[in-house]
Amino acid sequence: MSIILAFSGGLDTSFCVPYLKETYDTPVHTVTVDTGGLRPGDAEAIVQRAEDLGAASHSLVDGKAALYEDHLSYLIQGNVKRGGVYPLCVGPERVVQARVMVQAAAELGATAIAHGSTGAGNDQVRFDVATQILSRAMLGKELDVLAPVRSLGLTREASTAYLEERGFDVPSSTTDYSINRGLWGTTVGGAETLTTHGPLPDSAYPDTTAPKDAPDEPLTLKISFEKGLPVAVNGEAMDGVSLVEHLNEVGGQHGVGRDIHVGDTILGIKGRVGFEAPAAEILITAHRELEKLVLSKWQQVKKDELAQFYGMLLHEAQYFDPVMRDIEAHLTSSQETVDGTVTLELYKGVARVLGADSSNSLFNASLATYGEENALWDGRDAEGFTRLAGVQSLLAAEVHSSSTSPSGGDGALAPLAKAEPR
Amino acid sequence: MSIILAFSGGLDTSFCVPYLKETYDTPVHTVTVDTGGLRPGDAEAIVQRAEDLGAASHSLVDGKAALYEDHLSYLIQGNVKRGGVYPLCVGPERVVQARVMVQAAAELGATAIAHGSTGAGNDQVRFDVATQILSRAMLGKELDVLAPVRSLGLTREASTAYLEERGFDVPSSTTDYSINRGLWGTTVGGAETLTTHGPLPDSAYPDTTAPKDAPDEPLTLKISFEKGLPVAVNGEAMDGVSLVEHLNEVGGQHGVGRDIHVGDTILGIKGRVGFEAPAAEILITAHRELEKLVLSKWQQVKKDELAQFYGMLLHEAQYFDPVMRDIEAHLTSSQETVDGTVTLELYKGVARVLGADSSNSLFNASLATYGEENALWDGRDAEGFTRLAGVQSLLAAEVHSSSTSPSGGDGALAPLAKAEPR
Amino acid sequence: MSIILAFSGGLDTSFCVPYLKETYDTPVHTVTVDTGGLRPGDAEAIVQRAEDLGAASHSLVDGKAALYEDHLSYLIQGNVKRGGVYPLCVGPERVVQARVMVQAAAELGATAIAHGSTGAGNDQVRFDVATQILSRAMLGKELDVLAPVRSLGLTREASTAYLEERGFDVPSSTTDYSINRGLWGTTVGGAETLTTHGPLPDSAYPDTTAPKDAPDEPLTLKISFEKGLPVAVNGEAMDGVSLVEHLNEVGGQHGVGRDIHVGDTILGIKGRVGFEAPAAEILITAHRELEKLVLSKWQQVKKDELAQFYGMLLHEAQYFDPVMRDIEAHLTSSQETVDGTVTLELYKGVARVLGADSSNSLFNASLATYGEENALWDGRDAEGFTRLAGVQSLLAAEVHSSSTSPSGGDGALAPLAKAEPR
Amino acid sequence: MSIILAFSGGLDTSFCVPYLKETYDTPVHTVTVDTGGLRPGDAEAIVQRAEDLGAASHSLVDGKAALYEDHLSYLIQGNVKRGGVYPLCVGPERVVQARVMVQAAAELGATAIAHGSTGAGNDQVRFDVATQILSRAMLGKELDVLAPVRSLGLTREASTAYLEERGFDVPSSTTDYSINRGLWGTTVGGAETLTTHGPLPDSAYPDTTAPKDAPDEPLTLKISFEKGLPVAVNGEAMDGVSLVEHLNEVGGQHGVGRDIHVGDTILGIKGRVGFEAPAAEILITAHRELEKLVLSKWQQVKKDELAQFYGMLLHEAQYFDPVMRDIEAHLTSSQETVDGTVTLELYKGVARVLGADSSNSLFNASLATYGEENALWDGRDAEGFTRLAGVQSLLAAEVHSSSTSPSGGDGALAPLAKAEPR
Repeated sequence: MSIILAFSGGLDTSFCVPYLKETYDTPVHTVTVDTGGLRPGDAEAIVQRAEDLGAASHSLVDGKAALYEDHLSYLIQGNVKRGGVYPLCVGPERVVQARVMVQAAAELGATAIAHGSTGAGNDQVRFDVATQILSRAMLGKELDVLAPVRSLGLTREASTAYLEERGFDVPSSTTDYSINRGLWGTTVGGAETLTTHGPLPDSAYPDTTAPKDAPDEPLTLKISFEKGLPVAVNGEAMDGVSLVEHLNEVGGQHGVGRDIHVGDTILGIKGRVGFEAPAAEILITAHRELEKLVLSKWQQVKKDELAQFYGMLLHEAQYFDPVMRDIEAHLTSSQETVDGTVTLELYKGVARVLGADSSNSLFNASLATYGEENALWDGRDAEGFTRLAGVQSLLAAEVHSSSTSPSGGDGALAPLAKAEPR
Repeated sequence: MSIILAFSGGLDTSFCVPYLKETYDTPVHTVTVDTGGLRPGDAEAIVQRAEDLGAASHSLVDGKAALYEDHLSYLIQGNVKRGGVYPLCVGPERVVQARVMVQAAAELGATAIAHGSTGAGNDQVRFDVATQILSRAMLGKELDVLAPVRSLGLTREASTAYLEERGFDVPSSTTDYSINRGLWGTTVGGAETLTTHGPLPDSAYPDTTAPKDAPDEPLTLKISFEKGLPVAVNGEAMDGVSLVEHLNEVGGQHGVGRDIHVGDTILGIKGRVGFEAPAAEILITAHRELEKLVLSKWQQVKKDELAQFYGMLLHEAQYFDPVMRDIEAHLTSSQETVDGTVTLELYKGVARVLGADSSNSLFNASLATYGEENALWDGRDAEGFTRLAGVQSLLAAEVHSSSTSPSGGDGALAPLAKAEPR
Repeated sequence: MSIILAFSGGLDTSFCVPYLKETYDTPVHTVTVDTGGLRPGDAEAIVQRAEDLGAASHSLVDGKAALYEDHLSYLIQGNVKRGGVYPLCVGPERVVQARVMVQAAAELGATAIAHGSTGAGNDQVRFDVATQILSRAMLGKELDVLAPVRSLGLTREASTAYLEERGFDVPSSTTDYSINRGLWGTTVGGAETLTTHGPLPDSAYPDTTAPKDAPDEPLTLKISFEKGLPVAVNGEAMDGVSLVEHLNEVGGQHGVGRDIHVGDTILGIKGRVGFEAPAAEILITAHRELEKLVLSKWQQVKKDELAQFYGMLLHEAQYFDPVMRDIEAHLTSSQETVDGTVTLELYKGVARVLGADSSNSLFNASLATYGEENALWDGRDAEGFTRLAGVQSLLAAEVHSSSTSPSGGDGALAPLAKAEPR
Repeated sequence: MSIILAFSGGLDTSFCVPYLKETYDTPVHTVTVDTGGLRPGDAEAIVQRAEDLGAASHSLVDGKAALYEDHLSYLIQGNVKRGGVYPLCVGPERVVQARVMVQAAAELGATAIAHGSTGAGNDQVRFDVATQILSRAMLGKELDVLAPVRSLGLTREASTAYLEERGFDVPSSTTDYSINRGLWGTTVGGAETLTTHGPLPDSAYPDTTAPKDAPDEPLTLKISFEKGLPVAVNGEAMDGVSLVEHLNEVGGQHGVGRDIHVGDTILGIKGRVGFEAPAAEILITAHRELEKLVLSKWQQVKKDELAQFYGMLLHEAQYFDPVMRDIEAHLTSSQETVDGTVTLELYKGVARVLGADSSNSLFNASLATYGEENALWDGRDAEGFTRLAGVQSLLAAEVHSSSTSPSGGDGALAPLAKAEPR
């Protein structure tokens, strides 16, 4: 019997190592999943810290490809941004991490999985739910989930004291901001996000340039897509993870993808978070533009509705509801023709579309161009169409003229006044 | 018997004056509705032109208040942008114009309404449908709608020749771009919008500064809302029309609200249009942020779905479907608590939210702050919640483990590798 | 300090009276809300029982009008049936009951509200959530909610023993079925509903005739509506509560509204329940038919989607989410023209529509009759309409012919075979 | 050059044979597609009639398997009924027929396709749109579509006179009702359906028994499904077409699936139609029940919304919009676990569910049974869940107590009245 601990090296998970060992009198194996958040040197420091704290073993798993393939690919295809801005930087990471933890429990014969979440945030729900479900699905039984910080209602002061009492180093906070780095974006919390009054200072964002400090010269980018997924930048083919990393780099230099969002947490309260997510902003902007060329109106409407819902459920720890698989099938079908190249310009914090081309474009000048005469219909056809386009509203107006009156305001028209020429 | 002609003074409606007089041997009364598109001197020029062409009378009607109250107010409350970018600059103008035309027909005893639309665009449908319905609703009978340019399949060359033969001035095109100015934005078409390859040149946009030429110093704005409608800028109360005009002015100086959109026309083909709409961009950005503070999650989800649909139907000439009144009632209800002030920064083409405050905010630090201990629940409650949050997916995973496997890709996790400390 | 107990007189709430008195050493006031479930003599028996158990006082409140006006009216206007069959008999009762309890707590100065729910069903959630919210809204503070059966994980055997030890009568179960009677229907649970294998026996349904035993002669009913609410049966005006009671009576004689439903509980597991709800079945059938005459297509589509969602949230204890008020405003707007009379026939378990009439009908033979020549358009108009109706799909087929191939199956057509005449 | 005529042998298509031959001076090939509507002897009579009228050749194509595989399978999986009752008997037939016509045009080198529709109904739109699209997709060019009855605005009297002048037999109408028979149901129009006042007489329905004349003994049926499609009745495996034919037979004997529907036509006016569709009613009832056992709540909600939309677009001639392929992919995904057997009882016009079983059932008594103690959570978990389930509404009630007040009615509660025991 042993425990797998999802380990970041921060205060909460550092506390968990000795606490779990003492409390359950059993080896604690620490596991860290890299979902894009490790900078050079981080891995080594985490391993060292795990050993210092007395972990029975430490494992480091690269979860970036799984994150991209299982999650980001659908978020791109679905153009998923919460509240019009936030690209779900964090939610899917928890699913990847839980999957690794269950896999580790299987390999190491552990009977419980532990994490450092408190009882106040979204991640505890995502982690618990994913672990319960994956352990049943992958192991045929449910592993215990231990969240000592939540159970004890532990403050940061108490964790610090616990570690100091036992002679362990306490991770020094090098910043006033709480940062969660990942492949799909980095979130930033701090004193400013405890209210909605004002912005985070530019200095709180760790990896991107402030728009005002970005180059005065715009950068032009060409992003190519196949079946709705990015495959090349400026003609250079890249795998998904590398492409996202590359766009985070160049987008960040131009201040693209920084913003702040007020959203609804799983727990029903509102939360505010700053984030920087250059690649997400660039890719979703480009992908949406390409869809405008190649998808029918109803394809866009229906996939947008479903993708917003998909993002909501993913955010809310419901990734394993089977409806998510149905929506993925829908999205995949919708991307059949989403091939082509989009040109964007990055400038002072914005990724702006310049143009797009696709061999599947329905913007088909040879058959019909908007506003021009064309081969598909003539004026008399158009007249017949307009005749029938209003029939139902016309019947409604006949029986109930209130349907034609504006609902609110009085919107009274100015009286008709004959105007004389000069 | 006489004809009312919706008159802009451009080539197509200029052609209509003599053509209708000759063809139907009846007086033609021209009517121009100002929905925000007239610059100083335009009105006088249009009146003069109408007289020159032989109009029996000319009327000029101010439709800006009606446009704001009947239409823009709902587009603000609904955060309506098509394709994530385009704020429906043109569609609602046609409804206001049709209402004025029917009113004019009633006052002047006319039996037909004429417009200059071709058979190739959206406006013919909007104009025809609105006129048919409003004439039945307001007059109890259906007026004839005449669209000679559509019926004749007339080219610009043929219109020009027709006018020149009769000794009339032909309106000189002073630009290569077709411009539709209005209170809610200005659309721009040109050679570049006949394909999707590239952007419009900066010079094609008539009234806004290019982001690159915008001031290097950002401008901070505070916009106050009551029941979801803007009532003041930087503390100065304004009526809706003035407020929109003001934001168009200051937003335009910072290059805000310029973009280009590929969309679906009523006729089923794709169309591309450039636009500049500073006030729309600023107001919708601010309004959406305020809603994030004061509306419940489901309020936002449902009103967003309905408002997107509302925008689609408005775009597609279906403003008079009674469902639009139902959605307006829904939106009005949802705005009951949307009071407060949003602070934004305009900089180099972007309106960015800095913060927001509302006396109705659900971001309620006294009861519960995201990520902090709070008075509403404790860790054990949270544990119970997470326990139940996954029950259905867990049951699904029990009977059918495929529901937990990623649908696409293989997303294989890297093998677990024990890491040794340095 | 005292406790208000929602009291039904059954085993669980009987247990609560002495248990709460002993445990909290405080008076327990019992309150019963009649939401349509009391038969003659029930009220008196409940009062007697409360006194026998030592309640400090007992109150009986008629909640039928509140249930109808606050809840059933929207369920009728929304045609709400879960899973196509179940008319939400129980959910709204809990909201009415909670409101009475909070009102009673205010009047009697109580500091806690108690109920007899276990931890296994929907009602605990509805009761807790409604009580928390209403006490804050009505009293400005949150009352404690006590659910001793849930907290103790008490079995029926244990409750029985507790009461017997103290010399109290134990309510004798007179049936093998658990019955919840109410104005909007009666639910039935029993051994059969613990699986999905088979039906409940006819004898399990307490108040309706089995279809097979219903009269051989059908009964014709005319139900009149104003603004989407029933106002008369066979020309006789009735208030809402009386009308529902009347239809429960006559519908029940014909076996109408009996069914059994498998549904999703708030807790994520599936549940099965039998029910008999004659009035709900008749009224929703009639109301939906009337809407088909008077609402536009999109009105029906949008209100149906919203009403299904409304029913889901009501079922799931989310009645107080403000989105419910928005949807109510939408529904109210949609019912503006829902006036008229529907004729139905009740026969052997079914309410079948025979016809409907409305002065607001869009089925307007004077302007246009389906399949006949009409005054609104001619064949050439129709040709133009059909020409444009397919444009987008046609363009899609041009660029990607797979869009015209059936997705599943091979659906191969039989080869064309020339047929010779005999 | 020649013309393919979709030929039913009725008055309109009979007129077309000589009219097209004379007008276009070209051979006319008649083609009949059997989508389930031919009774014994019909085929021979149609062939004879085509020859009598001078058709260059006649072909008869069995379209039943294509109808089932391409269309009915999705209508079953989607539980598609318009307005809660009408199972889209006719719409998909037109797509199958158009596909056969285009195929025939290819084989016979024809350059035009003709049909007998008027300008007043849905079928002209379906036929025109499908033919335009399929001819481009299958032949790479667009065939002309000729609809002489629509173009000429021809009355039945005029068609009759035309045929009589040329010495052709005129098809005698043997009934006052217009009948469209097909595999998925038969529609019935007549004098009664030109208004909404009353029902069709029992005698107007050609193939089913009136409920009142149906057997007094119910019939029990077991229908087995695999991946959401019916595969066996009472344990006997059948292919889709045979299974539907069988259920039409036995269902019809019990009067199941007869009804009358008021609906929205493509043209914007309302239409009313009687129908008898026993198999559709039985299969959709059974299938929906099975889904309640095996799908998650959100799976049901999302697929229901999409399937209603799918039915609407299919009805409205939009089968070839690519969104339909996306929805089919979604539906197919959702049916992955829809395996099992449903037991129904047919009695006096109704198919009633008795029970259902599935190896994929989420109604999983071993883990948790509704209303009973279970292994997944305890009372304290439930308490935590209820604590968090109401947080957002509670916060909303704090800031704006109007959210807890009923919107309409006054719903005033009766005053609390202390009740004394007898």
